Amino acid sequence: MIAQRIQTVLDNLATRGLSQLLMCDPRSIQYLTGAYVEPGERFLGLLLRAGEARPTLFLNELFTAPADIEAEVVSFNDTGDPLALLSERCDAAAALGCDKNLPARFLIPMMERGVAASFVLASDTVDDARAIKDDEERQLMRAASAANDAGMARFRELVREGITEAEVAAQLESIYRELGASGHSFAPIVSFGANAADPHHEPDSTPLKQGDAVLFDVGCRKDEYCADMTRTFFFGEPDEEQRRVYEVVRQANEAGKAAVHPGARFCDIDAAARKVIEGAGYGPYFTHRLGHQIGLDVHEPGDVSSANEAQVQPGMCFSIEPGIYLPGRFGVRIEDLVIVTEDGCEVLNAYPRELETLA
Amino acid sequence: MIAQRIQTVLDNLATRGLSQLLMCDPRSIQYLTGAYVEPGERFLGLLLRAGEARPTLFLNELFTAPADIEAEVVSFNDTGDPLALLSERCDAAAALGCDKNLPARFLIPMMERGVAASFVLASDTVDDARAIKDDEERQLMRAASAANDAGMARFRELVREGITEAEVAAQLESIYRELGASGHSFAPIVSFGANAADPHHEPDSTPLKQGDAVLFDVGCRKDEYCADMTRTFFFGEPDEEQRRVYEVVRQANEAGKAAVHPGARFCDIDAAARKVIEGAGYGPYFTHRLGHQIGLDVHEPGDVSSANEAQVQPGMCFSIEPGIYLPGRFGVRIEDLVIVTEDGCEVLNAYPRELETLA
Repeated sequence: MIAQRIQTVLDNLATRGLSQLLMCDPRSIQYLTGAYVEPGERFLGLLLRAGEARPTLFLNELFTAPADIEAEVVSFNDTGDPLALLSERCDAAAALGCDKNLPARFLIPMMERGVAASFVLASDTVDDARAIKDDEERQLMRAASAANDAGMARFRELVREGITEAEVAAQLESIYRELGASGHSFAPIVSFGANAADPHHEPDSTPLKQGDAVLFDVGCRKDEYCADMTRTFFFGEPDEEQRRVYEVVRQANEAGKAAVHPGARFCDIDAAARKVIEGAGYGPYFTHRLGHQIGLDVHEPGDVSSANEAQVQPGMCFSIEPGIYLPGRFGVRIEDLVIVTEDGCEVLNAYPRELETLA
Repeated sequence: MIAQRIQTVLDNLATRGLSQLLMCDPRSIQYLTGAYVEPGERFLGLLLRAGEARPTLFLNELFTAPADIEAEVVSFNDTGDPLALLSERCDAAAALGCDKNLPARFLIPMMERGVAASFVLASDTVDDARAIKDDEERQLMRAASAANDAGMARFRELVREGITEAEVAAQLESIYRELGASGHSFAPIVSFGANAADPHHEPDSTPLKQGDAVLFDVGCRKDEYCADMTRTFFFGEPDEEQRRVYEVVRQANEAGKAAVHPGARFCDIDAAARKVIEGAGYGPYFTHRLGHQIGLDVHEPGDVSSANEAQVQPGMCFSIEPGIYLPGRFGVRIEDLVIVTEDGCEVLNAYPRELETLA
């Protein structure tokens, strides 16, 4: 599987006219080697060269690579000179494709030492490969979302009058761990009442009261892959507008998913969901893009928005997360992950989307 | 105060023979403008130029600068071209000092467009300024540590037989907020028993049992400045070796602080504390540096270690955190923050360091 990923990236490099690539993003390195290392300030690099099936990983001795890692490992310590080791293995007469996040503290010395003839941004050669999930990744994405579904069923049970958002949020991680996940894939959003009208609200000391919307935007990381789902409940019977808004968002979520098929553009999918909300008169209250790609990172390049005219392809995985936010009152968002199939999409979340009232 | 900081950085720049500097680190930008922005993938830059008291902040419209910000603000949106705006304000015939963390996705296009004649690493011009806390910062560091002291007094009350590390850790943030802090300055370490022998243990489902060491390495962020303190308690009466190890670490903490005065080298301070632990026969079990500088970031450049031969100066703020870690058994660490004064140091933490037994 990893050999195929390396080959895809090398093919993408060749298309760009490049023969060597240095990646530093820890998740891209994990994708191409199976090993995840968070190096902090220290140098971490993966060098791919045309014609070589096995890349070279430059790794500080403080970190341990798995014995079965699919890369040649070049070690150094804190008094060592990793850029000299890199220089020995780069073609100084050729251009070097660079990770978009390679920091100046490494890039400028690489230039001064003449590690390569020139330096060009080339993360897209890996981003494009990562966007198409292979069979193993699809299975891992399904499993992460299944754990997230099971988590949501437990989270709703935490809700009771007077409990605060922060108190609920603090309990989620241990539930994820009980369900076999390693933790959150992002800081969870738990929003009550008017706080749900802020899509990026952080859980605070707001207590739950009757009539509140209860929004959970949560995800776990399981076997390295990320889940991400939103459900909105009501604590006590919702009023008429809450019911209406909920139903519009639910229909927008369905319309977005129904628009997914190979050849559809990301902007078309965004438009399909947005049209439902606009048709109901709530257009100005859907204030963000419809979704984002996801995998080893919770946000991966290429969003589901009016600005992205690229076509979706089988194996791409992204969120469909329409919302309506009525400032000072309440908000509703319903989010699922989908994988594009040959003729439509597979929805990874099974947790129900019907309006649900909590005790 | 900010005017003085700008002047110090411009002086440092001149010493380096530079006339312009581009910073992108959000905390360095906060230090030099008063405004904190976390830009994610978007461009954020602060340009300082020789002879100009007021720097220029390049800020995406998604973020709002305070009305009283001490910088000229140049705005752009997601379809705009911030590097063109930067280019208009840089001297293309002069070298540009660059932030060590400036990512390749900005640096390479800046080079291709000829924004400057050359690009050199120059974060140290700001790091050196940040290392010397001014009067306002010293007051903020004292206040953050006072909140941390008050937090520790509350945290010890959470401890009871059978509670897990993760359950304790989940309750700390709301206590910090009650005490006027905005949250954690880093992910808290709560370690029971043998877990305390791993200096970087992450709180897990380990339950507390009689005879355990109980280690809290915790810090809050208050008014943007970071606290960081470690205390180690015992749940039930400690045995003889636990008492002996505790006393050695406590004496090492005192010896480290006693060695702090202007002109002492960081390595001398590390050695003073380490000597106490080595003298007691536990040298191999003190496995990390003695401390790190701290301020707007919880870890700032320049550590208190055998490798750092720089002299400390009045206004520098750092941790003194000796520890002894007996694998599989227990660990003890006692950490305080200090500010270097004219003739010694001021200890920011008042929480007692005497051996304390919990119920």
